[in-house]
Amino acid sequence: MSLHSKSTELQPNAHQPLNFAAANLTLNAIRAAHRLIAPRIHRTPVFTCASLDQIAGARLYFKCENLQKTGSFKIRGATNAVFSLTDEQAKFGVAAPSSGNHAAALSQAARWRGIPAYIVMPRNSSPAKKSAVEAYGGQITESEPNIASREAVTAQVIKRTGAYLVHPYNDARVIAGQGTAALELLEEIPDLDVMITPASGGGLLSGTAIAAKSLRPTIRVIGGEPRNADDVYRSLASGKIEAAAATETMADGLRATLCPLTFSILRERVDEVSLVTEEEIVQAMLLLWERTKLVVEPSGAVAAAPALFRKVGAAGKRIGIILSGGNLDLRKLPFS
Amino acid sequence: MSLHSKSTELQPNAHQPLNFAAANLTLNAIRAAHRLIAPRIHRTPVFTCASLDQIAGARLYFKCENLQKTGSFKIRGATNAVFSLTDEQAKFGVAAPSSGNHAAALSQAARWRGIPAYIVMPRNSSPAKKSAVEAYGGQITESEPNIASREAVTAQVIKRTGAYLVHPYNDARVIAGQGTAALELLEEIPDLDVMITPASGGGLLSGTAIAAKSLRPTIRVIGGEPRNADDVYRSLASGKIEAAAATETMADGLRATLCPLTFSILRERVDEVSLVTEEEIVQAMLLLWERTKLVVEPSGAVAAAPALFRKVGAAGKRIGIILSGGNLDLRKLPFS
Repeated sequence: MSLHSKSTELQPNAHQPLNFAAANLTLNAIRAAHRLIAPRIHRTPVFTCASLDQIAGARLYFKCENLQKTGSFKIRGATNAVFSLTDEQAKFGVAAPSSGNHAAALSQAARWRGIPAYIVMPRNSSPAKKSAVEAYGGQITESEPNIASREAVTAQVIKRTGAYLVHPYNDARVIAGQGTAALELLEEIPDLDVMITPASGGGLLSGTAIAAKSLRPTIRVIGGEPRNADDVYRSLASGKIEAAAATETMADGLRATLCPLTFSILRERVDEVSLVTEEEIVQAMLLLWERTKLVVEPSGAVAAAPALFRKVGAAGKRIGIILSGGNLDLRKLPFS
Repeated sequence: MSLHSKSTELQPNAHQPLNFAAANLTLNAIRAAHRLIAPRIHRTPVFTCASLDQIAGARLYFKCENLQKTGSFKIRGATNAVFSLTDEQAKFGVAAPSSGNHAAALSQAARWRGIPAYIVMPRNSSPAKKSAVEAYGGQITESEPNIASREAVTAQVIKRTGAYLVHPYNDARVIAGQGTAALELLEEIPDLDVMITPASGGGLLSGTAIAAKSLRPTIRVIGGEPRNADDVYRSLASGKIEAAAATETMADGLRATLCPLTFSILRERVDEVSLVTEEEIVQAMLLLWERTKLVVEPSGAVAAAPALFRKVGAAGKRIGIILSGGNLDLRKLPFS
């Protein structure tokens, strides 16, 4: 099952002001998030692999968020958001438009808190994705497969239920939660020269950049992005948020578009976006699966590919790579 | 790459008497093996998975030998054997007939000791298997794809080189090494009720049974075996070593035939052999990959299947499962 979050333009409703101030997103916020979520999530292991180091010409440290609860890092942000709500805010549950990893994560976090999670998914989502969300207790409402319908249906669901919107990345609490993966990685391997994560809506990359640059100002923070969905690359180049193109990538979790919050953080703190072809994604997946024996989803391979294929000028360096998740349909692999 | 050891009838040459006495195979021998190999191998992690526990109706502890060096437990026995040799015995290198995990493991262990490894592989072995052995420094000699030729070629290689035969399981030092996986697992989870490993030539199952029954006499030790290669099951039923049938199993590491040494240990110490269909192997692989995010080879799935599909009457029990390895051809998966 590929469970990453999808693009959405949905804004919070007026009675639920989110914290949009990037200034509040500090290392302290990430540390506070970590204290809040640590009892509920896994402290995921860091893998190394001599044969991949040889291929990369560098020393690679893989933070294994594919081994995280619900199979991706998304549980970090969702749990921080859900457990940051007051009882008053939480009493009618939470809601999000997502057909991916955020949907599963929010459902699980809500279950832990004992509140409902309302997930809006496009009608054409795969049965596998729907049953994954239901397995974590999420209640699905279907929309038409376009952004306008998803927004409208989500607004209806929130109006009907009173649920609190937890956006997959346009939310400082979610971003702070996502930053805890980098925090743990740097606690374990403090002297990293480079850190790479996948780039999409920018939640993971923003949280990672804040944690990494605060703890280690000399570190280079790099986003890996599919060439077929290069809107983060184009946005940082043009200086304004560019929409994702209509092209296809197998890394279907990486088709979201930046929001002003994540865009402002990335502009300030990210050094480079490295573009990865579909063929490189497949090759990186094969290398990761074969050498580390880990099931890594295409989005995770997008973060590893710039290091494996020596695209980021980091020869001999120590590179931290966040393997974002391990959810994908094993019966429809891009190899085999 | 599927790298498990294959069937062979090869006996040690006369000037290289092996230790065939099962009586010498004690917990102390396994502890000694562990001291010898621990600096060189990984202490592999133990994974648990709540959703698989639910399916099994039991608490499962997966010993992840797929994350072991060379991708399987075979490095344990090979390393113990290679480093147990005297300088005189080791000076011309080691040799084995194997196209599987033992070949890779013996090559790696020999490289660590700084001696050559001569591997006899059938001419029709896949290029992937050959290059895996070569990557670990093994020197390949090809035989015809039948047992008589493999034995003859191995004997020729040994005569020509003076290399020392390290049989994949007909060797007490190899068996003691394989038993260290169960030793580590029981050190970490002492109160297991059941332990399951794949059954083939009997090296891993013998070492596991010795370690487990010595440390915890009440434990049940079970071998998982493909129904399509059920010679261990038939041997224990008939009371004599039965040859493997000519049928096919995707768990191609499990086609070896017992030797007198392993047969005598299994008769005495193994409680049950649980037969697994090809369909169950595929389903167990899918469950393991999807839920634990680990790449597990078919042989490992054979050990997990009896627990996952509730074939061993262990409801509510604590079951240790040795995931034997993670080597297989990712481009030829039995699903996808």
